[in-house]
Amino acid sequence: MTAETSTHAYPVTARNRVKRLHERGSYDRDSVYAILDAAMLCHVAYVIDGQPYATPTLFWRKGDTLYWHGSSASRMLRHLKAGTPACLTVAHLDGLVLARSGFNHSANYRSAMCFGTARLVEDPEEKIEAMRDVIDRFYPGRSALLRPITTQEAKATTIIAMQIEEAAAKVRAKGVGDDEEDFALPIWAGVIPVTTMLGTAETCHRLVEGVEKPETLSIFPVGGKLDTALLTGQRIYEGG
Amino acid sequence: MTAETSTHAYPVTARNRVKRLHERGSYDRDSVYAILDAAMLCHVAYVIDGQPYATPTLFWRKGDTLYWHGSSASRMLRHLKAGTPACLTVAHLDGLVLARSGFNHSANYRSAMCFGTARLVEDPEEKIEAMRDVIDRFYPGRSALLRPITTQEAKATTIIAMQIEEAAAKVRAKGVGDDEEDFALPIWAGVIPVTTMLGTAETCHRLVEGVEKPETLSIFPVGGKLDTALLTGQRIYEGG
Repeated sequence: MTAETSTHAYPVTARNRVKRLHERGSYDRDSVYAILDAAMLCHVAYVIDGQPYATPTLFWRKGDTLYWHGSSASRMLRHLKAGTPACLTVAHLDGLVLARSGFNHSANYRSAMCFGTARLVEDPEEKIEAMRDVIDRFYPGRSALLRPITTQEAKATTIIAMQIEEAAAKVRAKGVGDDEEDFALPIWAGVIPVTTMLGTAETCHRLVEGVEKPETLSIFPVGGKLDTALLTGQRIYEGG
Repeated sequence: MTAETSTHAYPVTARNRVKRLHERGSYDRDSVYAILDAAMLCHVAYVIDGQPYATPTLFWRKGDTLYWHGSSASRMLRHLKAGTPACLTVAHLDGLVLARSGFNHSANYRSAMCFGTARLVEDPEEKIEAMRDVIDRFYPGRSALLRPITTQEAKATTIIAMQIEEAAAKVRAKGVGDDEEDFALPIWAGVIPVTTMLGTAETCHRLVEGVEKPETLSIFPVGGKLDTALLTGQRIYEGG
């Protein structure tokens, strides 16, 4: 059974079919989720008055629904009760690939493009729940430790939701792919790996004396990988 | 003189004006370039038949022109000789900001959104030059060391160019911004820094014996930051 025929795969249409280097593409939910859940930052594409925008924003996933903080699109969405087509993309750069020809230079990466209809979250209960979820998805159990959300804060927050209708993952994770006859050339070739790492937490200088960092934040160890921490956070969030 | 009135600033219109948290925005070329030049990966937004796409791709900057490898948009652009509106965005995640309320949680980041008209690079000379530039911009002087580009490779390559008409940079680079009355709460707050780092180069296992890594690749030291390496590469490229 290939990914495309799995019942757990997204339908493949003209919109999400991987055209260039299609052998790098897959359409099953597990592949798409693994890329989404390793990220905090996405880019959402909208069209406003014919102009496309790629807006970077924090996002999270709950089942097959993606949530993000809206701003540029919120004014537009307020007038579009039926929602508007959007594309939410995540890309991780994993390595620089230096080949023996310019043409075969590349990058190792993991990317996921998700298509659907973006809608404004207007129901007050769904919005409050989303405002707690965005904390707990990244920082397990943290929302319960915080000063509660006020009505004014909920009003000032714009949250956008999109159910994934179609999606595609695209991954390159390998060494140099030179033309067969080029391997004999006396040219250095290789892969320079790239990793997004966590540093030492900088405690707020106004912290009340004696307050310790909660144990749940140990999923963000110094020198750890951001994507591992985020995948762990998502697993805890889904299990909770 | 503020950035907005500098002669070296982009015009500010409804398209690029930073609406939400506008105090984080700036419009001068130096701020925008510093964010673009620290990156290799961008997201380009296009509209194809009413559907927006946020496509991740490698890109580079030459003066006020951005270049990238096109694929999804190339078929569309072949029919649109006058070009099509696009938005090229770069975002760097620099830190996770944990506050004492959910509302004040945030991220440190640097982002740049550039607007213009995307066009297909069809002139053979401009295309060959761009194919050399994409190598030399990232790996100083490397194109001269490689097996030359073939006519067939040039034909198989799609390059898209866009002159920046308008752009905006948006940056958050600070500690926790809690409400004044929340600082007294016994809740841990702080910033977890995030950095994209370079690993040890994995030499191609089919390398011809005795071939050394060129000295020019020393801008990518093990444990160095990717963005520093890319900024250095751009400086060398612009000086060359």
